[in-house]
Amino acid sequence: MDAISVIRTKRDRGELSPEQIDWVIDAYTRGEVADEQMSSLAMAILLNGMNRTEIARWTAAMIASGERMDFSSLSRPTADKHSTGGVGDKITLPLAPLVAACGAAVPQLSGRGLGHTGGTLDKLESIPGWRALLSNEEMLHVLDTTGAVICAAGDGLAPADKKLYALRDVTGTVEAIPLIASSIMSKKIAEGTGSLVLDVKVGSGAFMKTIEDARELASTMVALGTDSGVRTVALLTDMSTPLGLTAGNALEVRESVEVLAGGGPADVVELTVALAREMLDAAGIKDADPAKALADGTAMDVWRRMIAAQGGDPDATLPVAREQHVLTAPASGVLTRLDAYAVGVAAWRLGAGRARKEDPVQAGAGIELHAKPGDTVTAGQPLLTLHTDTPEKFAYAQQSLDSAWDIAPAGTAHESTPIVLDRIA
Amino acid sequence: MDAISVIRTKRDRGELSPEQIDWVIDAYTRGEVADEQMSSLAMAILLNGMNRTEIARWTAAMIASGERMDFSSLSRPTADKHSTGGVGDKITLPLAPLVAACGAAVPQLSGRGLGHTGGTLDKLESIPGWRALLSNEEMLHVLDTTGAVICAAGDGLAPADKKLYALRDVTGTVEAIPLIASSIMSKKIAEGTGSLVLDVKVGSGAFMKTIEDARELASTMVALGTDSGVRTVALLTDMSTPLGLTAGNALEVRESVEVLAGGGPADVVELTVALAREMLDAAGIKDADPAKALADGTAMDVWRRMIAAQGGDPDATLPVAREQHVLTAPASGVLTRLDAYAVGVAAWRLGAGRARKEDPVQAGAGIELHAKPGDTVTAGQPLLTLHTDTPEKFAYAQQSLDSAWDIAPAGTAHESTPIVLDRIA
Repeated sequence: MDAISVIRTKRDRGELSPEQIDWVIDAYTRGEVADEQMSSLAMAILLNGMNRTEIARWTAAMIASGERMDFSSLSRPTADKHSTGGVGDKITLPLAPLVAACGAAVPQLSGRGLGHTGGTLDKLESIPGWRALLSNEEMLHVLDTTGAVICAAGDGLAPADKKLYALRDVTGTVEAIPLIASSIMSKKIAEGTGSLVLDVKVGSGAFMKTIEDARELASTMVALGTDSGVRTVALLTDMSTPLGLTAGNALEVRESVEVLAGGGPADVVELTVALAREMLDAAGIKDADPAKALADGTAMDVWRRMIAAQGGDPDATLPVAREQHVLTAPASGVLTRLDAYAVGVAAWRLGAGRARKEDPVQAGAGIELHAKPGDTVTAGQPLLTLHTDTPEKFAYAQQSLDSAWDIAPAGTAHESTPIVLDRIA
Repeated sequence: MDAISVIRTKRDRGELSPEQIDWVIDAYTRGEVADEQMSSLAMAILLNGMNRTEIARWTAAMIASGERMDFSSLSRPTADKHSTGGVGDKITLPLAPLVAACGAAVPQLSGRGLGHTGGTLDKLESIPGWRALLSNEEMLHVLDTTGAVICAAGDGLAPADKKLYALRDVTGTVEAIPLIASSIMSKKIAEGTGSLVLDVKVGSGAFMKTIEDARELASTMVALGTDSGVRTVALLTDMSTPLGLTAGNALEVRESVEVLAGGGPADVVELTVALAREMLDAAGIKDADPAKALADGTAMDVWRRMIAAQGGDPDATLPVAREQHVLTAPASGVLTRLDAYAVGVAAWRLGAGRARKEDPVQAGAGIELHAKPGDTVTAGQPLLTLHTDTPEKFAYAQQSLDSAWDIAPAGTAHESTPIVLDRIA
């Protein structure tokens, strides 16, 4: 077996054999297959695709590259959720404690942001004292005592994926559906959850720009999960405009706490409750009412215990950026478009995200929205507030927003997009 | 400018801009673009192609990565030839002195073999004392005094190509017509020849298996040369069966000397003379008669001077392999097929070629053919003689020959393929 023959098979539109896949993943993890060989193979996969059989084997080989976790000691059924990433997507923050409050154990191994999408761990790290890095024992302890845990994935979980993901990031091979699906699912299956709900984003702020691509990714992942004995369901959800009214780190924590307090923006509440219902259903928990758990404070109680168990102070004042800059509506009328990607890039430029893995993020940086598509606006009213500790970035961030919105004459009918576009099980 | 945006452009079937091409070649040569990024781009180019404008710019950028040579001090017009490589392709050996004997200056910067095709330098190195490595001054001196020189290309010539070729070799991206064409032509144009004849091989023993691919490669290279002011013409020639009656190093030198002595196999003589006529025509030399220069010994005189000028002894006894093994015809009839690729691989396994750049080759190893397609054979007569210093490889070499030939009943009509299949100018 050698790398070139594996590359040639896929380059020439052939099907990779199970032996080829097992060998190339293992040899790449061990360093016998070089980065320049794996990136050439990744580009061939991106352009020529992989079929269901190949993707399943590729995923299994990545799982086999590392350790598997075991939640069988927990008394509750586990329920997990994964989002493909979007702008203002803070859903994990209220969702994990909410589903725990309804009776499931919710292990959320999360990541940091790269590019225009924020990272769940970056957001939570704006809470003074909170720690993302837990040992496996600490993680199980937090999960067992509070019902939910949100932390960084350990190095032992699917190391082949870790290495391949970093490679794809610098070789223009991120946007390959077979590789995205196997990357996500290898970690989720290795993590050992019993059920999984996928939030597959569609629109300008998402990796998948079209509903067709999102549907293909979602059904690929659902098949992979189901074949591995994980009850898996996917919601396709709108990412043409940011979720909620904030994009940033501390800004999104504040909004998540509002949702846990029974308030918050309607779209965030709607998606949080929809995902919670799917997670509870997949975990086999009936008769729980997530809307009630938000209203009566039981979800908030889990949040406070979960944050405290990881060293955070749930009552601490969250960091605020040193400077603000308000953008106002240039005309009166109906806001018909506010582009998720433009807002995501602007928040990133303000300091909420990072360009390289080793960069720090600003806890207070980001963007507040004062209107959402469908809202009526008046000329001169605040539309967006930009937050940053580095005000010299205002002009650069604003460039990204130059054509980020449309305002139609008052009275123009605006058909609002539903949050949940489709469901795949 | 960054590597990922260049990769994405080609991945998404766009046209690379001149600025993108100049930048990526320069940044790769300097090490700013990493191997894993260039291999991903090479795979995207292989699968999505480049148009004429892109290929011309890519070639120009590779030329600009290094030095250019200058033959303007020579009193004779220069004529150069390049073969895309085949089995038993010793043509450069008789051709260079032959064309020099007819009045041109023939600089032949040649390579070593890798894989199943032999290398011109490996062949000549079987002559005791002969040196492939010359300084630019030595090369010009040999060329000026003897009319021909065959030597290794210096490190300064198109270093981007050198680096990219080594990368393509290990990443399954060799077989990309735009990259093959720009690799060959960047070296030939940087070398500074006034005219160039391309021998583009077609068939099982060649890179190009079909006449369509060979025609595309040939016309791409002819256009590149012509646009750079080099008079360029291409012959498409048959490589379905080995050229001549030998494949190996010393074995091919012996056959080349037979041709220079006025004898030798008909196909080698025919192709040598055809290429010589094209080279002389492209160099603007009229009224020369290459067939006569072979017959009257003037080409042999140049050969002897050229070999001696590079330290070789033209009268030395050539190395002979320690062991021989004869394969006989299993039936009587007409030999209708003797596969070039199978013979090339067998010769390589016997020790005539190398698996890695740093491997040595055996001077005496290789294969002698006792019949060619179209010949009548008798059951039990010798068909092939295998030569090697490592007889433990006989069985392994023989595996490659298992279905290398077809023998049809006596009297079966066999339509022989002409050597020159097409001409592109």
